[in-house]
Amino acid sequence: MIDETHNPALTSWVESARGHPDFPVQNLPFGIFSPSGGDRRPGVAIGDAILDLRGVAGLLPAEVAAVVQADSLNALFALPAIARRALRRRISELLSVTAFRDAVAPHLHDAAGCTLHMPTRIGDYSDFYVGIHHARNIGAMFRPDSPLLPNYRWVPIGYHGRASSVRMSGEPVRRPKGQIKPPDADAPVFAPTRRLDFELEMGVWIGPGNAPGEPVQIDAAGDHIAGYCLLNDWSARDIQAWEYQPLGPFLSKSFHSTISPWVVTAEALAPFRVAQAARAAGDPRPLDYLWSDADQAAGALNVELEVHLSSRAMRERGMAAHRISQGSATSMYWTPAQMVTHHSSNGCNLQPGDLLGTGTISGETQESCGSLIEMSRGGKTPVTLPGGETRSFLEDGDEVTLSARARADGFVSIGFGPCCGRIAG
Amino acid sequence: MIDETHNPALTSWVESARGHPDFPVQNLPFGIFSPSGGDRRPGVAIGDAILDLRGVAGLLPAEVAAVVQADSLNALFALPAIARRALRRRISELLSVTAFRDAVAPHLHDAAGCTLHMPTRIGDYSDFYVGIHHARNIGAMFRPDSPLLPNYRWVPIGYHGRASSVRMSGEPVRRPKGQIKPPDADAPVFAPTRRLDFELEMGVWIGPGNAPGEPVQIDAAGDHIAGYCLLNDWSARDIQAWEYQPLGPFLSKSFHSTISPWVVTAEALAPFRVAQAARAAGDPRPLDYLWSDADQAAGALNVELEVHLSSRAMRERGMAAHRISQGSATSMYWTPAQMVTHHSSNGCNLQPGDLLGTGTISGETQESCGSLIEMSRGGKTPVTLPGGETRSFLEDGDEVTLSARARADGFVSIGFGPCCGRIAG
Repeated sequence: MIDETHNPALTSWVESARGHPDFPVQNLPFGIFSPSGGDRRPGVAIGDAILDLRGVAGLLPAEVAAVVQADSLNALFALPAIARRALRRRISELLSVTAFRDAVAPHLHDAAGCTLHMPTRIGDYSDFYVGIHHARNIGAMFRPDSPLLPNYRWVPIGYHGRASSVRMSGEPVRRPKGQIKPPDADAPVFAPTRRLDFELEMGVWIGPGNAPGEPVQIDAAGDHIAGYCLLNDWSARDIQAWEYQPLGPFLSKSFHSTISPWVVTAEALAPFRVAQAARAAGDPRPLDYLWSDADQAAGALNVELEVHLSSRAMRERGMAAHRISQGSATSMYWTPAQMVTHHSSNGCNLQPGDLLGTGTISGETQESCGSLIEMSRGGKTPVTLPGGETRSFLEDGDEVTLSARARADGFVSIGFGPCCGRIAG
Repeated sequence: MIDETHNPALTSWVESARGHPDFPVQNLPFGIFSPSGGDRRPGVAIGDAILDLRGVAGLLPAEVAAVVQADSLNALFALPAIARRALRRRISELLSVTAFRDAVAPHLHDAAGCTLHMPTRIGDYSDFYVGIHHARNIGAMFRPDSPLLPNYRWVPIGYHGRASSVRMSGEPVRRPKGQIKPPDADAPVFAPTRRLDFELEMGVWIGPGNAPGEPVQIDAAGDHIAGYCLLNDWSARDIQAWEYQPLGPFLSKSFHSTISPWVVTAEALAPFRVAQAARAAGDPRPLDYLWSDADQAAGALNVELEVHLSSRAMRERGMAAHRISQGSATSMYWTPAQMVTHHSSNGCNLQPGDLLGTGTISGETQESCGSLIEMSRGGKTPVTLPGGETRSFLEDGDEVTLSARARADGFVSIGFGPCCGRIAG
């Protein structure tokens, strides 16, 4: 629902928030931070600053005062959606009404001097496969005759991921070792991956959970989503190719997954909801448990996505990172509400602070691919970087940055902050 | 290592422990329990009683006194293996030397009056596929010409599972709904599974973890295993068949997984270690990172496994549960140490209290299958129960109980306690 917090005329008394590309007062994402020398606590990004929610606990709704004492957002995400919305309205008020300035300003910290931490203790991380162009691109490499499997347009395909290796933006990525079997070899070798890739995904943070055996209904699914982040699901393609049958990807993914630190709330994204448009004419209508007129009409997200890459050589020569991909979250074949509903449809209990990945989001063109294996067509057509280097897969020293921006006519656009990782070595 | 705690002549002053089939003084498994009206705390099963470790904290090694104050075993499992072994020796002493009786006996609770809880807060649950006969039986249904895929004898195949739906023995199992596509239908339906199955597995509890990017070496892997349990990985075969390509099983497994409550320690199982013998002549030698002479010589577990089933009709007629399968953990193609080493070989960090499943353990014969889909050959040869009922898959009211016993000449055999679940409805 769109309310006063989205009013484009609203401005903050925090000067750096005015015209801020990511964190104007219309955004207000949640995160966990520690000020220099301080302990971990919940905060809200506003311009170049972070508001310490503990510091202003006395000014917040009573049901929130306790949860901001925690060192993770799990308890905050467990609040019912109505309480989450009330909290947003109050924070918007505190940061825009000048009368609150004296009481609130002492609890602002310069973001540059703070450390950001994992927003939740992730109970479970599941990764979906809702980028239909990605599924088709990858499928075509393995099955040229039938790139999309028969279940794709019926089932929001997903799999369980590894929660322990989800890490913060900025943490170096170590190139994993694993079993690799060259096509012409009789036996595999155990060696560092030679086909290290990124995957451009969005992450969905679960708010209130569901009890075991009690699925979330599609029209209620939105209330179970606390917010969104960016997710780079680093992948070792050669390890993946050898290990993935019959039970799916395992060690090719579980060495490291990078998230952006700020949780852009479902509420902040309300003005950027659009109709689900990735289903083509002639595609089957989803089964009833996945169907909602409201979700079809406004369940997709108009979020622009970009991937930048800089190599060590580029940085040494003072060159800026190069944009290698630009796409849109509207390429998702299934909406976040459908992901939540499907995941819980067997009675599986989702819990506050769980993370769902969308799967790689690719567009229809080579310029909008969400992974290098797609851009380089499995290594056959390497990508050329501005300095003349080429890339089929990632080299040591490469840095990949995902970014996102939500736009809609008549509203202030908001960003997600960077999701960044550099290959160590 | 075998020490005085395994001495078959050792007896406890707890009378019910003498000759106890599961919990003689040579076992001493850990669990989390609450006495009537009390809170959750760590305990040790001894005969028909449970020793409250908090109550005897003052008698335990200093490094343990703090971790027994927790309401889960995560902190205890984080202790280095040497501390875990010292704790075992001390508990063995407290429960066998009569001089400790007066100090210890007040902290024994009748197990029948206690409630057992999840032993750890499971960070991540991963499920392997090390039962080679199971892999071959299932593979033969899908690929009669090549039941085992080319990677099976090289890679300890596994996948990420769902931690939130791992539940205690005794919790009713709700039949899940999901997408099912009959072979002759054009479209799937969303309906309760008609092919509900059990899977006989062992669970491996992770002790001390490894730091991100720092794999566990095969010869150190044993120190990272705190203990074992039984695991029933309930499966909806019709949902599985439709959803599993290309990313593996998802909702067909994540509705419910049942574990036995007691953690039988790696130390208690020391006398029951045997040579790895499931690899056939001519099979490839595992790659170096998975190879250890010591692990090959004594890394397998001589644990007998049984599955009992009782239907509602059988119980109404006063009939005992019927044993439908009897096998051995020696059918595992990869040892627990190899599972741990492989899982961390890409740098993935395992954490104390994580759970690994072995995958279904089947023997070579129809009488030793670890699942109904194997016993009934995909439904073609139903199993007959003593009262005349037949089963291709589980019916509402069916109760499945897994049990296990470790035996070795010259040692007192120990058991795991039941892993039990009844299909609701």
